[in-house]
Amino acid sequence: MSEVIEKGKLAKKASYQIGTCTTKEKNEALLKIANGLRKNEEAILAANRLDIQAGKEKGLSASLLDRVELNQQRIAAIADAILQIIDLTDPIGEVLETIEKDNGLKIINTRVPIGVVGMIYEARPNVTVDAATLAVKTGNAIILRGSSSAIHSNLAIVKVIHEALEDSAVIPDAIQLIEDTSRETASELFRLNAYLDVLIPRGGKNLIDTVVRESRVPVIETGAGNCHAYIDDTANPEMAKEITLNAKLQRPSVCNSIESLLIQSDWFEQHGNDLIASLMEQGVTVHGDARIVEKIPFVQEAAAEDWRTEYLGLEISVKTVANVHEAIDHINTYGTKHSEAIITETAAHAETFKQKVDATTVYHNASTRFTDGFEFGFGAEIGISTQKLHARGPMGLKALTSNKFIVSGEGQIRE
Amino acid sequence: MSEVIEKGKLAKKASYQIGTCTTKEKNEALLKIANGLRKNEEAILAANRLDIQAGKEKGLSASLLDRVELNQQRIAAIADAILQIIDLTDPIGEVLETIEKDNGLKIINTRVPIGVVGMIYEARPNVTVDAATLAVKTGNAIILRGSSSAIHSNLAIVKVIHEALEDSAVIPDAIQLIEDTSRETASELFRLNAYLDVLIPRGGKNLIDTVVRESRVPVIETGAGNCHAYIDDTANPEMAKEITLNAKLQRPSVCNSIESLLIQSDWFEQHGNDLIASLMEQGVTVHGDARIVEKIPFVQEAAAEDWRTEYLGLEISVKTVANVHEAIDHINTYGTKHSEAIITETAAHAETFKQKVDATTVYHNASTRFTDGFEFGFGAEIGISTQKLHARGPMGLKALTSNKFIVSGEGQIRE
Repeated sequence: MSEVIEKGKLAKKASYQIGTCTTKEKNEALLKIANGLRKNEEAILAANRLDIQAGKEKGLSASLLDRVELNQQRIAAIADAILQIIDLTDPIGEVLETIEKDNGLKIINTRVPIGVVGMIYEARPNVTVDAATLAVKTGNAIILRGSSSAIHSNLAIVKVIHEALEDSAVIPDAIQLIEDTSRETASELFRLNAYLDVLIPRGGKNLIDTVVRESRVPVIETGAGNCHAYIDDTANPEMAKEITLNAKLQRPSVCNSIESLLIQSDWFEQHGNDLIASLMEQGVTVHGDARIVEKIPFVQEAAAEDWRTEYLGLEISVKTVANVHEAIDHINTYGTKHSEAIITETAAHAETFKQKVDATTVYHNASTRFTDGFEFGFGAEIGISTQKLHARGPMGLKALTSNKFIVSGEGQIRE
Repeated sequence: MSEVIEKGKLAKKASYQIGTCTTKEKNEALLKIANGLRKNEEAILAANRLDIQAGKEKGLSASLLDRVELNQQRIAAIADAILQIIDLTDPIGEVLETIEKDNGLKIINTRVPIGVVGMIYEARPNVTVDAATLAVKTGNAIILRGSSSAIHSNLAIVKVIHEALEDSAVIPDAIQLIEDTSRETASELFRLNAYLDVLIPRGGKNLIDTVVRESRVPVIETGAGNCHAYIDDTANPEMAKEITLNAKLQRPSVCNSIESLLIQSDWFEQHGNDLIASLMEQGVTVHGDARIVEKIPFVQEAAAEDWRTEYLGLEISVKTVANVHEAIDHINTYGTKHSEAIITETAAHAETFKQKVDATTVYHNASTRFTDGFEFGFGAEIGISTQKLHARGPMGLKALTSNKFIVSGEGQIRE
């Protein structure tokens, strides 16, 4: 039996155990994991050094090595995050609906764990802890499939988690790490419908595209964000500038940063020069339409593909539009339905934009950078779903739950 | 451009129009569809006769022809069902959560249409109306891909729907029927991620398996039901018999009928003979374990595959078990997680069963036949989801919705 199938079976079986643990039992287990990580900091850092060394030998980029690297502060932060998860309300067991039928049947729709969650991810070993502890909190078993670049760290972390769970009411088998990080084990996960209820990819576009294309297991698609800010004719110039700079520059590498700016033509004539100059001052390369290129020096002419491009860095595409309707059409055509903002003092335009733009999160006079489970107050974030099914937008604990109808009768049969 | 891509584009564009129609506009459109179907009854029946004739020439089975066939009563029932849909509460626009942040940001999570729904189905032309009208009610565009056996009926029905919508506030393009019923158009739908938000198969196991295996578009899996009744040691014999006969015989061809009976051994010794005899009297073929075969004449010995078989007819597998725990293990191993019942007078056993059995719907002292959107009081049924994501169990209107976060600020940026 392959490693994936064997661990799939173990996780499935364990899901029935962890799924019936009480909130107290799950929280006690989480506390033991947090303490275990602190106590075994040295062993984890030693394993992490092996990953870093192997990464350097393989010639991994500095930014990738940074994502793999752990240190005392990072481990402390990971352990602290577990304490926050302990404080969150356990969603399991929540009554979603109660239906009483004329024939006396009582139907209760309750929130239950999903069962077995698969997580396929890159580099960052903190995802291992994050995903495992969110699974414990929600009563799910989990199969973790990280990347080869962090395998020593992941093994050390999961060893600590298993030791912590040995001493808890939660069965250690609920957390499974796939040790073989070859492509074959990813492919096996894509076909593990017998044991896996959902597969969540966390990582770059290539990983997500591969999982969406190849998985037969239901997927929650996360990630891609070709986000826009639209500056309307009545936008406050100071506010427009602050939001644009924040949404582009506060953390350019993440999915809720803007990649494209749409500017109403009259506003552009008055304030466009100043706004674009302030972006360039911050080192942002600007790809503009013909009108912008003509008016402002050092703007590159945008190619057709620029409107679809998620730069994830110090670049932006800028287009002038006639009005809010043209902006909405552009966004619905080129956007990835993640986070979209309008800056305007015209309430009716804001309303139209909020209603017609198709995205997980639509902003009026605020930065797109707020699309985040912690910013929304969920206390945790499994990722940001960009699909319409199951969960959309920042996903908190509830995204790791399903429902079950429980029906009580006294012998009712259907006529 | 292929038919599927062309209609996908039209549906996507139309989804933005229908998605912002008011409840009143959608209900008026639905009423026009209901009236149109009644008024054009003759044209629809004439088209249906072409399907029936073609089916007979192709040698389709009587039961398949019955599913294709329409008559005055059936058309009247289809139109009446639309009036019921009009009466249902529109789920769109419902506020799911309101979050106020310390920085003054106001976040409202609202219920929105999914966008473009794909429905791939077999035979029954009533699904065409059903799916189209549920889509209109929930503000979704829909792409319908029926089977060749009902193509004339489907074309006639969609013509009537389009004519009705011409005269309404809903854009007719919101309803698209794929006219080419070759395999290629199904394959194209599986890859239509650019325009399609979800694909729902309605039909037999082969269709569902193919869609789950091949679709890159998110799927809601419906259908398969290897359902069990477990008769516990304290079960009331009369109740056990009534529920068993109802769950097996009231409509054996549907997914929420039982296919397997588990009987606690002591109960079996006292009452098993009588119960199994009553099944056989109704013409049910019984596949039993060794103990049952030994004790009761005319029972066939069950093969290993019987425990996994969804007979969908007058057959049942029967197994004796030591206790509720063995019953739960058997169900979680062989069941399809659809509908599962325990018959017992022991409250603690019922509680354990409800908690540990992994299924959309778990029954205590009631027939599994109640798993149904109408029986649950949803007023509509898109299908019965057997997956954990998005929707589980009978799906009402809410299963055709997603959510959107709407954030209002006064210039807030992220620190």
